[in-house]
Amino acid sequence: MRVEFINPFIASLLNVLNTMAQIKLSPGKPRIKKDEVARGDISGLMGMVSSQTKGSFAVTFDESLALAIMENMLGEKSTSIDHEVIDMVGEITNMVTGGAKRILADKGFDFDMSTPIVVSGKAHTITHKAEGAKLLLPLECVHGNAFIEICFDS
Amino acid sequence: MRVEFINPFIASLLNVLNTMAQIKLSPGKPRIKKDEVARGDISGLMGMVSSQTKGSFAVTFDESLALAIMENMLGEKSTSIDHEVIDMVGEITNMVTGGAKRILADKGFDFDMSTPIVVSGKAHTITHKAEGAKLLLPLECVHGNAFIEICFDS
Repeated sequence: MRVEFINPFIASLLNVLNTMAQIKLSPGKPRIKKDEVARGDISGLMGMVSSQTKGSFAVTFDESLALAIMENMLGEKSTSIDHEVIDMVGEITNMVTGGAKRILADKGFDFDMSTPIVVSGKAHTITHKAEGAKLLLPLECVHGNAFIEICFDS
Repeated sequence: MRVEFINPFIASLLNVLNTMAQIKLSPGKPRIKKDEVARGDISGLMGMVSSQTKGSFAVTFDESLALAIMENMLGEKSTSIDHEVIDMVGEITNMVTGGAKRILADKGFDFDMSTPIVVSGKAHTITHKAEGAKLLLPLECVHGNAFIEICFDS
C-alpha cells in the first residue's frame, strides 16, 4: 500500500465538490484505519484494478452534506436520500475516481475502474478487504462530514 | 448486459454456502431490477473489469442468515454483526466471485476482480451504477434471505 495513493483522491474530491457544488471541504489528516469505523449515510464505492495492484475506493457522506451537494449541484432540494441523490453520488464517485485515475497515470500507475456502487442506509460502515493497510481521511464543512477510504493490495 | 452472466454467480454462491456452511439456499427467479430495492444487513461487494465489459457484484444477507453461516462455517456464535462476521462475508465474496470468474473464463470472458468491500448497517440498500440492466436474484432458506445483484456495462 502506497500512502501517496490517497492524495490523488483527496485532490480530485475537493476539486469536484468545489467546481460542481461550490462546497469547500477541509481535509483532516490521513490515517491508517485499524479498528476505527467511519459511519455515514450514503457512500459511493469503486473497485480498481491495475497490473501492479488492485484495491477499492469509498467516499462516504453524512445525509446533511449529501443533500447540500444535491441542492448546490443540481438546484434541486431533496429532503431525504432519494433516487436523485443516489444517482448524484454515483456521478461524484465516477468523477472523483476518473480524476484520481488521471493523476495516478501521470505517476505511472495505470488503473482500470469497475463501475460505481452506491450504498445508502443510516450510519452504515464500509470495510475494505484488500491485503494492505486501509487509509482513512476525514473531511468536514458546515453541512456535515465526509470520509475517503482507500485500500490496496501490496 | 448478458443475462446469462448471473448464472455463474448463483452456482458459485450455492456451492460455497453448501460446502462451507452446509446451508442450502433456494434461488428465486432472476429479474431485472428497476425501482425495486433489496434491503439487507450485511453485503459483500466486488468490482469486475474485463477487456469486453466492466461491472459490479453484490451479495446481501439478512443478519440472521449471516450469523447462521458464521456459526456453521467457523463454529463461532456471534450475536451481532461484528468484526468476525464482516471478515467472513469478505471471504465469501472472494470465494463466490473467484468461482464465478472461473466459470466465466470457460465461456470466454476474462475478468479481473478488484478487492472485496463489506458494508454493514441495518437494512441498507445497494445501487449499481453501470450502464446496463441490473439483475436481482432473491434466495431464501430457514435462516433468512439473501440477494445477489449484478450489473455490467453493455
